[in-house]
Amino acid sequence: MKLYLNNTPLDEAIEITREVCSKIVLESEIVDTVDALSRITYKAHYAKISSPHFTAAAMDGIATRFEYTLNADTNNPVTLREDMFEVVDTGDPINEPFDCVIMKEDLVEDSDGYVVRKSHVPYQNVRPIGEDIQFGEMIVPKKRKITPLDISSLLASKITKVEVYKNLKVGIIPTGDEIIDSSRDNIPSKGELLDFNSWTFKALVESYGVQGIRYDVVKDNKDDLKAAVMKATEECDMVILNAGSSKGRGDYAGSIIEDCGEKFFHGISIKPGKPASLGIINDTPIFGVPGYPVSAFFVIESLVKEGINSALNNITNIIKKNPKIDAYLSRKVVSSLKNDEYIRVKLGKVDEKVIAIPVGKGAGTTMSLTNADGYFIIPKDVEGLKASSKVNINLLREDFNPDNTLVSIGSHDIAMDIIADYFKDYGLNFSSTHTGSMGGIMALKRGETHIAPSHLLGENGVYNIEYCEKYLGKCVIIKFLKRIQGFIVEKGNPLNIRDFKDLERVNFVNRQKGSGTRMLLDYNIEKFDVNKSRIKGYDREEITHLSVAAQIKGGSADCGLGVLAAANMMGLDFIPVCSEDYDIILNREMLEDCRIKTFLEIITSKDFKERLNKIGGYDLTNAGEVVVLGG
Amino acid sequence: MKLYLNNTPLDEAIEITREVCSKIVLESEIVDTVDALSRITYKAHYAKISSPHFTAAAMDGIATRFEYTLNADTNNPVTLREDMFEVVDTGDPINEPFDCVIMKEDLVEDSDGYVVRKSHVPYQNVRPIGEDIQFGEMIVPKKRKITPLDISSLLASKITKVEVYKNLKVGIIPTGDEIIDSSRDNIPSKGELLDFNSWTFKALVESYGVQGIRYDVVKDNKDDLKAAVMKATEECDMVILNAGSSKGRGDYAGSIIEDCGEKFFHGISIKPGKPASLGIINDTPIFGVPGYPVSAFFVIESLVKEGINSALNNITNIIKKNPKIDAYLSRKVVSSLKNDEYIRVKLGKVDEKVIAIPVGKGAGTTMSLTNADGYFIIPKDVEGLKASSKVNINLLREDFNPDNTLVSIGSHDIAMDIIADYFKDYGLNFSSTHTGSMGGIMALKRGETHIAPSHLLGENGVYNIEYCEKYLGKCVIIKFLKRIQGFIVEKGNPLNIRDFKDLERVNFVNRQKGSGTRMLLDYNIEKFDVNKSRIKGYDREEITHLSVAAQIKGGSADCGLGVLAAANMMGLDFIPVCSEDYDIILNREMLEDCRIKTFLEIITSKDFKERLNKIGGYDLTNAGEVVVLGG
Repeated sequence: MKLYLNNTPLDEAIEITREVCSKIVLESEIVDTVDALSRITYKAHYAKISSPHFTAAAMDGIATRFEYTLNADTNNPVTLREDMFEVVDTGDPINEPFDCVIMKEDLVEDSDGYVVRKSHVPYQNVRPIGEDIQFGEMIVPKKRKITPLDISSLLASKITKVEVYKNLKVGIIPTGDEIIDSSRDNIPSKGELLDFNSWTFKALVESYGVQGIRYDVVKDNKDDLKAAVMKATEECDMVILNAGSSKGRGDYAGSIIEDCGEKFFHGISIKPGKPASLGIINDTPIFGVPGYPVSAFFVIESLVKEGINSALNNITNIIKKNPKIDAYLSRKVVSSLKNDEYIRVKLGKVDEKVIAIPVGKGAGTTMSLTNADGYFIIPKDVEGLKASSKVNINLLREDFNPDNTLVSIGSHDIAMDIIADYFKDYGLNFSSTHTGSMGGIMALKRGETHIAPSHLLGENGVYNIEYCEKYLGKCVIIKFLKRIQGFIVEKGNPLNIRDFKDLERVNFVNRQKGSGTRMLLDYNIEKFDVNKSRIKGYDREEITHLSVAAQIKGGSADCGLGVLAAANMMGLDFIPVCSEDYDIILNREMLEDCRIKTFLEIITSKDFKERLNKIGGYDLTNAGEVVVLGG
Repeated sequence: MKLYLNNTPLDEAIEITREVCSKIVLESEIVDTVDALSRITYKAHYAKISSPHFTAAAMDGIATRFEYTLNADTNNPVTLREDMFEVVDTGDPINEPFDCVIMKEDLVEDSDGYVVRKSHVPYQNVRPIGEDIQFGEMIVPKKRKITPLDISSLLASKITKVEVYKNLKVGIIPTGDEIIDSSRDNIPSKGELLDFNSWTFKALVESYGVQGIRYDVVKDNKDDLKAAVMKATEECDMVILNAGSSKGRGDYAGSIIEDCGEKFFHGISIKPGKPASLGIINDTPIFGVPGYPVSAFFVIESLVKEGINSALNNITNIIKKNPKIDAYLSRKVVSSLKNDEYIRVKLGKVDEKVIAIPVGKGAGTTMSLTNADGYFIIPKDVEGLKASSKVNINLLREDFNPDNTLVSIGSHDIAMDIIADYFKDYGLNFSSTHTGSMGGIMALKRGETHIAPSHLLGENGVYNIEYCEKYLGKCVIIKFLKRIQGFIVEKGNPLNIRDFKDLERVNFVNRQKGSGTRMLLDYNIEKFDVNKSRIKGYDREEITHLSVAAQIKGGSADCGLGVLAAANMMGLDFIPVCSEDYDIILNREMLEDCRIKTFLEIITSKDFKERLNKIGGYDLTNAGEVVVLGG
């Protein structure tokens, strides 16, 4: 088998995309002015009437002739009799023969009429015809994005319909025999995959300001696929064909583009995202986008968005751009020389520096994108970046604010997810990355995190203090919770697992090196003289309690070490082994930080304790106690 | 009569508004996840299934048992027979007893099956259950604005519905006997006013990110108004009652709020915008907003928007803010000590400095807002600002870019409006402010404009050169057009106006001092020995040709001096008097600027010339010729 995709450099692919998409011609449509907010005018529009369209009072008072008031002053009041004026409110017409308005503040009413003590000039306090808008005047030029204030002038000048550019339509075709529509209530069976991609693409292109039209899932049948592509390219300005962009069995995208139109490239040098393609069918640009969600996202961000912008550039210079922020890498990142590599990161501000923490490398993990605050690109020809390198981050969430975010790196517990939820009530974000306990302590030492949740059992049988003293010196421990660790096993414990010795005869799933749970396992393996090499699956690492439980639930493992909450959540059985201290480590200065105060307020609240008790397996007696280390 | 409004300082009014509106409680609703883009979650949502929910191939290739490959290497190929593997594509399930995938790139097919030359480990190229998302894991916390990538993870974990906050609903009630709905096709008669305000308010609150609900126009009848207010305060979270906020005849807003609820203030110290009020009815904040569109806009920007933000602050920290830019005032602005004054400005970048040119002081002029690029506030207790003061501008248009804008200050001609339309085709803006010819030359001298359109008749009978030499020295004139000036008169010229002497017996409307047309008038008055003091309306000034024509059209004047195009546009008659040169003056360095090159390209184009010929009264023979002055 040979390498079957070419490797067009991203720059070149973008260049081609721009050229192809800039040829998209958008037509116009007529819409009601009242519905035209943010639409872009197709032509200039001119006032159909003047505003005001009659001579009008600019003040509440009386309309009269200025001549009557010529000799009026403080010493010579003039009385206007009934036939010499008309009472008017602001906006009322000024009728012949009147030519000025006297404000009511300048009038005194008496039995004969109104007394005036000021002379007036012609048109005083009067709005002449067309003061605001003159008939025939241009109200908006072409290619103007209509604002609320434009709507005001358009309606005031009786332009009730406007000719605007039609929205750019992007068609999205999900494909694949195994794909089922995720928006319906069908539960997928083994082998079926939910189509969440097409809905995500629709939302993405809509977030870029254009219209997304999602078509139904098409099976891997060349004729059906061809029919769907022909229909979508007729109906839309641009089409995204999802999956089938690589060359597996049933991957027809590339050949359909070749059969029905022209193909410009297939395979670009980005990672993830490589097997992307671009062609043209029915004069409509069509993108082949890979099925893996992370790959798909970066292809859409890097190519499809460029294509949309090129098309829109013909009519507007308002193109949505990602907000950006500079940040410093928390750790070294290696990357391939062959590709532009897209790195997802979480962000947090620690000691006035925004830190970017790389997360999730897998191309199939949607959650790594949902959890990421942004991404940056390592260009090809660069082998990687050192820790602390400055990188320019494309933000993925407009509500990201480093000052409002508490960064947590270290051990994972479900309680931390729940705290993230509580944080939102304070208008704050809680960003938590799971590296295991040691990873958190090292991140704290390097100044990359605010807190490090940790449950490291010292040789003296006390949790955390030994490691804090060794690696951090001066620091603070906030006591959080005691949690029960035990064996997570299938319902009914069919293999009758009771103690660590039993692990020699089962299919085990382990936690990653540096995690507190892994250390707990190793501590007990030694204590109970278990033969590590006989534990099948000792080298198979998962990074959270829940993912360990998920493996057992799915049947790929018989047993793992973890917390009760994870077993409960997956509907599994749990054999308690011991209880351990799960604490929060931080630098002493952070104790005064409002985010830490919020954290303390939450973990000591009745509401929070009740919520954890419902999950079970937790003891919060000492929650919130502060232990100061290092004198 | 007494001063009837109190004068609550803006700060205090904002404080009260925030307090009142922060008590708005938003409820939740359930929406389909696929429609949930940008909605804000009401609670945390947890995965209903794992993703993947079965052990799946991470690559195209074959599923097999890792044990079969244990001894395989380059020298010891292993052949897998038909019963030892299953062909899989990415995403396919891995069935028992298989536990790893060999990529097709690592396989060679032969007659017995597949040949492997690498050993594999358990779970190699396999996506374990829950690799992406584990059942029970928190996908989004509460109060999260849903992104396209959140939709991805929500759907992948089978969360097909989400509980989100309902949109904030702002009800808008237009009121007034004279008000008719502008969105319909009825032509207003004298005394009727189009209701464009309520549609503008709807668009404004929608541009702030909430829902606007416009109610039908209510007549000035206390019972009807009360019924409308009770209905809207039941149905909405916040209500805007338009007009009736002052105290003219039929201004019931204030008293209705007092009758049906509680009033907090009535009258605030901003200009324009003074007669605004806030109260609460049915637990719903209700704003009284004045009828004049500019006043209304600033009340909504300064108060209603604050109220909306306070309500939303409970659920999100993403509040839309006006983009801002620093600029330097083109001229002195005086302001009242009593009020915070809102000054509308046009903006342009001249010599690397962003210049703010104050425009339109009238509270009734919607066009001044449509034409403005932004506004700034002069606080009360400040008497005004000197020319060149630095001011912080709230931008009104997201497409404003000072680098893309050609600034024109000076004489007005309809040709300049048409150029503004052409400019949009180049992705550029043309910002033109009408001050008359002399105003333009002085602005050019002060470095506040790029070009000054001018038609100043010198004593030597030559246009513009004399003034350029006197005021500017070194500069450039781009010859633009010759235009016919004449008397604009009623259809049929009923007063038989033929020459300047006739002006002594008609109702005249003049142009402002410093305008070329005014100078042309004065030149001819002297030449033909007309008695200026006998011209009725000599002191009545309008600032454009069209506004002169509009006065004649409306019957408030018999005659004015102006261009043929204006007479044609208004369907009036025109008595030619002379032709004059309308030229473009600029600094020499600007000749190289791309915006000037665009300007030259447009005015010399066939298309443009044809468009002006259709209007009539123009001669473009010399258009584009460059005259360099000052050696």
